[in-house]
Amino acid sequence: MSLESYMNQIGQQARAASRLLAKASTAQKNDALLAMAKALEEARPRLIEENAKDMANGQEKGIDAALLDRLLLNDARIDGMIEGLKQVATLPDPVGEITDMVYRPSGIQVGKMRVPLGVIGIIYESRPNVTIDAASLCLKSGNATILRGGSEAFHSNQAIAQAVSMGLKKSGLPEEAVQVLNTVDRDAVGKLITMAEYVDVIVPRGGKNLIKRISQDARVPVIKHLDGNCHVYIDDEADLDKAFTICMNAKTRRYGVCGAMESLLIHKQVAKEILPRLVSAYQEKGVELVGCDASQAISSSVASATEEDWYTEYLAPKLSVKLVDDIDEAILHINKYGSHHTDAIVSGSYTKTRAFMAGVDSSSVMVNASTQFADGFEYGLGAEIGISTDKIHVRGPVGLMGLTSQKYIVLGDGHTRDN
Amino acid sequence: MSLESYMNQIGQQARAASRLLAKASTAQKNDALLAMAKALEEARPRLIEENAKDMANGQEKGIDAALLDRLLLNDARIDGMIEGLKQVATLPDPVGEITDMVYRPSGIQVGKMRVPLGVIGIIYESRPNVTIDAASLCLKSGNATILRGGSEAFHSNQAIAQAVSMGLKKSGLPEEAVQVLNTVDRDAVGKLITMAEYVDVIVPRGGKNLIKRISQDARVPVIKHLDGNCHVYIDDEADLDKAFTICMNAKTRRYGVCGAMESLLIHKQVAKEILPRLVSAYQEKGVELVGCDASQAISSSVASATEEDWYTEYLAPKLSVKLVDDIDEAILHINKYGSHHTDAIVSGSYTKTRAFMAGVDSSSVMVNASTQFADGFEYGLGAEIGISTDKIHVRGPVGLMGLTSQKYIVLGDGHTRDN
Repeated sequence: MSLESYMNQIGQQARAASRLLAKASTAQKNDALLAMAKALEEARPRLIEENAKDMANGQEKGIDAALLDRLLLNDARIDGMIEGLKQVATLPDPVGEITDMVYRPSGIQVGKMRVPLGVIGIIYESRPNVTIDAASLCLKSGNATILRGGSEAFHSNQAIAQAVSMGLKKSGLPEEAVQVLNTVDRDAVGKLITMAEYVDVIVPRGGKNLIKRISQDARVPVIKHLDGNCHVYIDDEADLDKAFTICMNAKTRRYGVCGAMESLLIHKQVAKEILPRLVSAYQEKGVELVGCDASQAISSSVASATEEDWYTEYLAPKLSVKLVDDIDEAILHINKYGSHHTDAIVSGSYTKTRAFMAGVDSSSVMVNASTQFADGFEYGLGAEIGISTDKIHVRGPVGLMGLTSQKYIVLGDGHTRDN
Repeated sequence: MSLESYMNQIGQQARAASRLLAKASTAQKNDALLAMAKALEEARPRLIEENAKDMANGQEKGIDAALLDRLLLNDARIDGMIEGLKQVATLPDPVGEITDMVYRPSGIQVGKMRVPLGVIGIIYESRPNVTIDAASLCLKSGNATILRGGSEAFHSNQAIAQAVSMGLKKSGLPEEAVQVLNTVDRDAVGKLITMAEYVDVIVPRGGKNLIKRISQDARVPVIKHLDGNCHVYIDDEADLDKAFTICMNAKTRRYGVCGAMESLLIHKQVAKEILPRLVSAYQEKGVELVGCDASQAISSSVASATEEDWYTEYLAPKLSVKLVDDIDEAILHINKYGSHHTDAIVSGSYTKTRAFMAGVDSSSVMVNASTQFADGFEYGLGAEIGISTDKIHVRGPVGLMGLTSQKYIVLGDGHTRDN
């Protein structure tokens, strides 16, 4: 079969499955998730065996250690996937939720009902567990999924797909509810992101370059998670002890998460007091500091920052520091150099916290809290498929709700429209 | 200046204006809308003069009467634009609305704040009043607008733009909040829909072909309003008097609106009773009927429908009729042939109305009400910029809310994340 026909068949099957999934009851979807968990458990030896092939291929090709680590499936990671499936089964079902029903002067009653998006295409890189994370959230929200993993994880993903398929079969939901592409042909991605008749939205999971390329070429809406170049701004009216605690947590709790602070802005009035305290604490943790001239004048441990630094998401023990004249400069800086992910102010001023919340154009804006809270679980949304830095459709952590849409429902009793 | 530089300049100006608009108070925006209304009033003679040039050009080029009518600006239409501006000024401001604030176990408080999308590009055809309708909704929702009207309305749109600009100037909001392109170069559209750094969303207003072409080529999200191939399904448990009233209203109240019924589905058990009644009433109104074999067997006034008829939005006194075996067939037919706009069931059955609401994949699903209710004002949303048949971002009538997004806000008091 040609790639074109193969992809069309996958698309048609996904569309047909999505119609059935949209009607599936909460119990059916939960049963399917638990059956998938059971099937993964039973497939454990096979998963490890198939993953070993990918690992061997990877080593042979000389892919780097970090990538190899992400590729690895061991018992702990399989446990994680199984646990993830069980957790998603416990989340509330967003589908069918009816809200905002009001009577209108004409006598009709108008409100909204939450519905699945339809078919979601997921494109991801090395980590095979994304197959399960993504498929489970899509399934619970009533969507069919087409998954395309990295070629380096091909055998692992196929083995996971078999287990998923077996679980779906046992639960009575269509097997085509979750389809993992069985080709490494790169043209399959090009087809997937352009077949708007079968795919309603694309969620790319991976590096900035992958996401940019996909956004550029897609003919289907894309839910984008670009980088998290997060800021904390310490205002001149900040409680400096709170500022210290928040800045340490925002940078050092974890370096590799998208909610980690990458750039620290400090009002010049308080910089002399707070910056040296922070510098010495960061140095103890091994955090490298680069900054503007004014911050270097205060602390000799701050190296010189380049223009590029202000744009950079380090995801590493490195931080850029800039002193600002006032909150306006801080907001301008964040909107210019930031990535619209998560930015925080530390301040005791009513007026300035309000201005910051209104003025910073990011998917999450925080007041007196660590940027590392940016996470679906912390927000009460449950597991997330990514954090959208877009404005269209969904912003911030994308959980079950973000994978749904709403339609209007209108109830009458023979009502007609006059004029 | 080259087209490229011109469009980049327009884009940069729009982006800068959008930052100011996002911060503008409700009073400032309302003042600007009223100042625009006043400026239009003052420009009335000039508008009619400039419009006369477009009308003369159009007649010379031999464009058809319907198009010429849409192009015409007379006193009544200028009144309409002025009235529209005043109405939008009275609508509630969606920007800054804070919802869903809850305390999380960590102690942070999480909720959402409504924010403008940023810069909205509007591409439309002949009707010059769209310039005002679109610009006013975008302005009230805090967005900057770049408008590109049809070349046949060039002089009218430029005159409107001048008035708008004067109104904005007087109100103190940036003149670049609303920019009407002053070129008829078609490449300007190509640039507008691909400059994602300056434009956040495109709203095409016009025929199906325009919208399809734009969706195909855009690199910016598009809020689409495709056709309204709306259905009414008369169930075997319908109150047939209500069914009669609803079907007459849904088809004949107005023929040219997107919420008009274009296809009627009737359960075979009640077709013999209701179809002849409807046929004679439709014939009195001059509605042409085409249908399936079974409907033709009941009424000789029903001509034969082609496969193409089921897909067709007539926007005219013409209706396709099909008998179905049951509600499942009705739902399948609607999802296959419909345009996901607005579809209604007439039924007294609890189970079947529920199944219809869940099963029909349309932006509005109605029960015992006329499809002609599909309208922003009837839903209580106020003026609309279009009716989205998409699932991403916004579905159904797109009013002020549909032109906004939400960001998360997180309030703490020195909170940090533990694990």
